[in-house]
Amino acid sequence: MTEIDVYLSENRERFEEELKELLRIPSVSTESRFAGDVRRCAEWLAGHLSNAGLETVEVIQTDGYPVVYAEHRAHVESPTVLIYGHYDVQPADPEDLWTTPAFEPDVRDGRMHARGSEDDKGQVHMHVKALEAKLRSAAGLPVNVKLVIEGEEEIGSEHLEKFLQNHRKRLSCDAVMISDTTMLEPDLPAITAGLRGLAYMEITVRGPNRDLHSGSYGGAVRNPANALASIIAGLEDQYGRVAVPGFYDRVNEMTGEERASLRAIPFDESAFRRDLGVETVAGEAGYDTLERLWYRPTLDVNGLISGFTGEGAKTVLPGEARAKVSMRLVPEQDPEEIQAAFTKHVLSLAPEGVEVQVEHHHGATPWRADPHGAVFEAASAALEETFGRKPLLIREGGSIPIVPLFESILQAPVILVGFGLPGANPHGPDEWLDLDVYHKGISALVEMWGKLGS
Amino acid sequence: MTEIDVYLSENRERFEEELKELLRIPSVSTESRFAGDVRRCAEWLAGHLSNAGLETVEVIQTDGYPVVYAEHRAHVESPTVLIYGHYDVQPADPEDLWTTPAFEPDVRDGRMHARGSEDDKGQVHMHVKALEAKLRSAAGLPVNVKLVIEGEEEIGSEHLEKFLQNHRKRLSCDAVMISDTTMLEPDLPAITAGLRGLAYMEITVRGPNRDLHSGSYGGAVRNPANALASIIAGLEDQYGRVAVPGFYDRVNEMTGEERASLRAIPFDESAFRRDLGVETVAGEAGYDTLERLWYRPTLDVNGLISGFTGEGAKTVLPGEARAKVSMRLVPEQDPEEIQAAFTKHVLSLAPEGVEVQVEHHHGATPWRADPHGAVFEAASAALEETFGRKPLLIREGGSIPIVPLFESILQAPVILVGFGLPGANPHGPDEWLDLDVYHKGISALVEMWGKLGS
Repeated sequence: MTEIDVYLSENRERFEEELKELLRIPSVSTESRFAGDVRRCAEWLAGHLSNAGLETVEVIQTDGYPVVYAEHRAHVESPTVLIYGHYDVQPADPEDLWTTPAFEPDVRDGRMHARGSEDDKGQVHMHVKALEAKLRSAAGLPVNVKLVIEGEEEIGSEHLEKFLQNHRKRLSCDAVMISDTTMLEPDLPAITAGLRGLAYMEITVRGPNRDLHSGSYGGAVRNPANALASIIAGLEDQYGRVAVPGFYDRVNEMTGEERASLRAIPFDESAFRRDLGVETVAGEAGYDTLERLWYRPTLDVNGLISGFTGEGAKTVLPGEARAKVSMRLVPEQDPEEIQAAFTKHVLSLAPEGVEVQVEHHHGATPWRADPHGAVFEAASAALEETFGRKPLLIREGGSIPIVPLFESILQAPVILVGFGLPGANPHGPDEWLDLDVYHKGISALVEMWGKLGS
Repeated sequence: MTEIDVYLSENRERFEEELKELLRIPSVSTESRFAGDVRRCAEWLAGHLSNAGLETVEVIQTDGYPVVYAEHRAHVESPTVLIYGHYDVQPADPEDLWTTPAFEPDVRDGRMHARGSEDDKGQVHMHVKALEAKLRSAAGLPVNVKLVIEGEEEIGSEHLEKFLQNHRKRLSCDAVMISDTTMLEPDLPAITAGLRGLAYMEITVRGPNRDLHSGSYGGAVRNPANALASIIAGLEDQYGRVAVPGFYDRVNEMTGEERASLRAIPFDESAFRRDLGVETVAGEAGYDTLERLWYRPTLDVNGLISGFTGEGAKTVLPGEARAKVSMRLVPEQDPEEIQAAFTKHVLSLAPEGVEVQVEHHHGATPWRADPHGAVFEAASAALEETFGRKPLLIREGGSIPIVPLFESILQAPVILVGFGLPGANPHGPDEWLDLDVYHKGISALVEMWGKLGS
């Protein structure tokens, strides 16, 4: 055992106790009643980073919650890695579905249960502990490290862009590492190499100036709910392809290599179906489930509302109908271009007798990793050595808008090394982090720093 | 002036004061807190019918609110007319939109404003006053009259069918007259000669067993809201025709005579559009607005709900989507046949990967009057004499389920002579009854009794 292995082994319990301390702070950024706790959490983290041996530690105010910033300067010629994470968490609701309270961490079956255990306090804590172990070792940490831990990720990282812009020089780095994603299995490390983007729209169809009696008026005036349904039906074709003209123009067709790499991924479609309670999967013709989720764009209705929605029957011809519709995008689709094409197409589908309005809620740029470079290779090798298996290059169907943001502002590649696991329920009740993965992950990060510093 | 004209003229004010008394009773059948008032209203009406000179008056209990029954026996060979009406009313909500309180009758611009003034207490009161005038005249009323005034019309006349069945013999008559419909203009009497029927359905589309993250799952599982939209879109064709196979099989095409009779009706389409705030009317190709409303069946979405419907954006792939859809039917469509055809068609449109369920809420048989017979002719002639214009034979796009019920149980034709007016807002705030029409209508009914008894 190396000096650091001994350190990690001897401090195992303390690490867990400290993590519990962090998880006890209800740093819920979405609810203003927790504002004091969110700020307390930033201070706790700052103090903890100092204790870990980071030389510069600051709590930097923004127009929202502060960013905890820390820095370790090794040598001007050493590589520089910026670590991003967040200390804010989702609300605990519905609280009554938790086995133990959300902010009273409880270890069961080797899992730490608490809000934020996986998303993202637990994974931030792994980085802090790996840095502590390296900084306290005889050899020290011959790599430049910067940490940006924000408190507004769960509310859309509203002030992060400005923060990155304002501190662009100070934050300059060779790579950005983020641990806020998942692995597929506990023994199988993963690097997330692609994210879908997003264009989130809302369609409002207005007909008569009020709700009408469907007997007295039905058949003589366009029904906005029927009109909305036909518009939505016109957004997809019979092959499950999005029918917005130009939608696929910039979509990269999958390469043979990409398809082959997906075949190597342990994905159990029947377990997927069972978990969701569906008899068959569905989607764009010519693609399988992982391809559809990771490499293909899609369109989903997220919400529908019109007229009478209570129990029973009311003979109303609604004055208005609304739908929220979002599209997941893949490289090189451009959210703004897609918004415009969507709007144009929806308006072209609008029948006479109703007024149709299309609103844009928000977007996210799709992202694909460049799986090369010293930091990527060090991370990959360290994960393989620690977990005993080569990390999978996976993708994520969702969007992480800050990933392309970091790349565009700091001009450095982002590497997503995540330690969550399927079913960890990051935004739901009984969120958990596997403690074996937690400790193995810390070892892997230590290993990575070693490789980068040698 | 005849004896009765003098009577009506001398009692004008008393009639209005009595109507106010009736309207002050908040006989709201839909809200249990008014149960005492509903029963009090029945008693008030019974007492009032006795005072009017009806010999037999009973408050007959049902499993719900009582029926007020009254009878005048003239001669066994005289014609027998049964008058149906209801003494219950809709709730006053939204109360803050009323100019004066709903249950404090107020006369403005020659209109009596109060809940129930038009629907249906005012029109019931007209019948009572006409009978009173005839019964107190020297000649008396040489026609057999039966009144059935129920207290559950606004809650679906739940116990009426059983009441009619139980008292079928006692209620036997030559015609049933109902005053619960409208005229098109104050000077233009109308007899409603057709009603559309109804088949009210609910479609539930179930996909995954829970709401999913639309990023993590979108594109790989059938979205029930998208599926619902495409099902609804498949219910109509591009010509505004209902696409349910067999839907039009029993629909009577309009005759040339029917179309010609509609041309005679003073219908201002631009006023219709202005009132509804729509730029164009819409509907089945080949028909105009009145034809669409009165002679053609139709299909309307009454309600839609799925997923996230709050403000802003939530990236949810809903587990379920629901729509309420109703069809208005015309003679000789059969509600049960249509329900079955609708269900079959919806299921045939269901895509793979979702479970679709179709539920039937309620139905109503379409109805067409037989505009002949002594009572119809007496009513028609009396209206013409009193209002100075021949009554229009109009139709109503809505359904009155009790109309076909009376015909089928009592085997007597129903005659709908209504005294409401467009805009009288029977289920909304500031409901009103035109007092000039009220008094003229009483005169017309007196005239009708005269013709039937001569």
